[in-house]
Amino acid sequence: MAKFITYKQSGVSIDANDEMVGRIRSSVLATHGPRVMDLPNGFAGLFRLDNSKLFKKNYKKPVLVACTDGVGSKVKLAEAAGKFNTVGIDLVAMSVNDMLVQGAEPLFFLDYLAVNKLAPSLIAEMVEGVAAGCKQADCALIGGETAEMPDIYGTGEFDMAGFAVGVVEKDRVITGENVKKGDVVLGLASSGIHSNGYSLVRHICFKQHKYKMNDRIKELGLAVLGDILLEPTKIYVRPVVNLLEQYKRKSPVHAMAHITGGGLVGNIPRVVPKSMDVVLERGSWPIPEVFNFLQEKGPVEEREMYRVFNMGIGFVLIVDKKTVGEIKTTLEESGEKVYQIGQITAGDNKVVIK
Amino acid sequence: MAKFITYKQSGVSIDANDEMVGRIRSSVLATHGPRVMDLPNGFAGLFRLDNSKLFKKNYKKPVLVACTDGVGSKVKLAEAAGKFNTVGIDLVAMSVNDMLVQGAEPLFFLDYLAVNKLAPSLIAEMVEGVAAGCKQADCALIGGETAEMPDIYGTGEFDMAGFAVGVVEKDRVITGENVKKGDVVLGLASSGIHSNGYSLVRHICFKQHKYKMNDRIKELGLAVLGDILLEPTKIYVRPVVNLLEQYKRKSPVHAMAHITGGGLVGNIPRVVPKSMDVVLERGSWPIPEVFNFLQEKGPVEEREMYRVFNMGIGFVLIVDKKTVGEIKTTLEESGEKVYQIGQITAGDNKVVIK
Repeated sequence: MAKFITYKQSGVSIDANDEMVGRIRSSVLATHGPRVMDLPNGFAGLFRLDNSKLFKKNYKKPVLVACTDGVGSKVKLAEAAGKFNTVGIDLVAMSVNDMLVQGAEPLFFLDYLAVNKLAPSLIAEMVEGVAAGCKQADCALIGGETAEMPDIYGTGEFDMAGFAVGVVEKDRVITGENVKKGDVVLGLASSGIHSNGYSLVRHICFKQHKYKMNDRIKELGLAVLGDILLEPTKIYVRPVVNLLEQYKRKSPVHAMAHITGGGLVGNIPRVVPKSMDVVLERGSWPIPEVFNFLQEKGPVEEREMYRVFNMGIGFVLIVDKKTVGEIKTTLEESGEKVYQIGQITAGDNKVVIK
Repeated sequence: MAKFITYKQSGVSIDANDEMVGRIRSSVLATHGPRVMDLPNGFAGLFRLDNSKLFKKNYKKPVLVACTDGVGSKVKLAEAAGKFNTVGIDLVAMSVNDMLVQGAEPLFFLDYLAVNKLAPSLIAEMVEGVAAGCKQADCALIGGETAEMPDIYGTGEFDMAGFAVGVVEKDRVITGENVKKGDVVLGLASSGIHSNGYSLVRHICFKQHKYKMNDRIKELGLAVLGDILLEPTKIYVRPVVNLLEQYKRKSPVHAMAHITGGGLVGNIPRVVPKSMDVVLERGSWPIPEVFNFLQEKGPVEEREMYRVFNMGIGFVLIVDKKTVGEIKTTLEESGEKVYQIGQITAGDNKVVIK
């Protein structure tokens, strides 16, 4: 029987037609490099860490870095739109962007998809999305589980969880301990709402106001609401891994943060020493119009907006001020929009927005 | 703020009382050995693979082995019983037993818990269960995500997904390619139903018959039904890893299988060459009375029973017939109940139960 790596036998109906199995298998295989050991019918995904002339890098003191996350209630929007091939990108993004924070490069990914009914086309679309995310993150999709649980998930409902593993040399783990006063905060543009704050988004758009997913929104330049809300989370792996590789010895990148639930205010302090503040300058980066739209339609207090949403900055780097120019250039050459959004001062671990 | 490793900030309510945070933190930390790098407020879990005098083993050509799984509708029984500290053991078991099949030893684990409401005591119980499973599997719980999704999970409902990573030396990966005619099939006793077939279990016990979780069942020696049904899945890590370590060169263990959904009939063929059959002898191992109970109460056809349930054998080893005695002894010394349940013959990849 045609199987696709470690997707469990019970995961996709034996009656699933060959086209679907083929779609899933080809999207999964497209993420595999030479490190993946293919084991048809295996019980697990196998990934060679090291020790081959095939590989660009070997590790002396490898530290494995692992993350797990879901995409929260963004799944409900995918459900409402009947569009299942983008939330997989979000799923990969949430875990790999977290891992980047410690300086790691992603190696492989696994997903858990739980559904009401194992409709082959639905599963195929979901896995295609996950595989697309894995390609963007240069990691291999080496396993997954699809669970049919009609007693938990209602008709059309689903949930998904992702797991990513990466690696970093022990002496290159980024912990934030080198952050110092005067360091500069650089922000990388987000692609939109990413994967946090969707309970509030849904409340505003569909409960308070009776928008529909395919409504064109005047305030958003007549964009289709569903397209704006389902825009996949940006994956920062390539620009950030490329940047870190520029510095073989002492890295001028002192800390990084993935801006998820809690926003800039909640996430940056996690990587900054207790005796320092982060001072951000309002207006130093553009706030995407979707956030203004949500803030007005709520209305939502500005303070709350900064607690719930990324407000246009999806990833933050705290860098030595002497290297701001070269780091900005390197990131821009990778295609990023980079903003100098603030600096580190003496303080007590808060974020101040001036 | 007291944090517990990479359990996300948003995961447990800021109002969660200190006792609960303490319970979670201490149960998580109890799974950590010297390989875990503690990074308070980190965005990821960090695990040192190698290269220290602290570690018993180093790897020359490490192959990482990764698995993901849930526990299916066994979560519904935990919910019905209000007992949340055992399904975490099942969660760990499902992934680590899968990984064992390829000859890997587990290194670390992460969990995804999705709930209707983040009740601190509920989360603490769940994590305590996961941590207990990790201790049994000698792996570290280095991360987790708790997601509050009231629009997907009804009051009291939850789901969980687990993710395990292990390692095996490249030339010690067990693939089943060495299986040959005459090899002997050894079965390790299960602890009960494990984590598969619960849709059928629930149908029989609670829809066809109106049992309650706290009923004492005459046919099961007056055991409490909930205790029988929630018995955690056996974790086979220690006996199997110990066994594999006995053979430094050529291993007489040619293949293994974790008996999950699909039963003996569905899982063993996955690791046996296409040109061979597996002949199992009825009566060569005892069938636990819970399976007889379910079969009668259904009634369920015997053929279906073997397709859905483990029927008393949770893990299978296919070994060289010359080493059956010593392997049986080694496993029994680890506390396992070991049965010689069949052998490999020429055929076409089916399981025949004589």
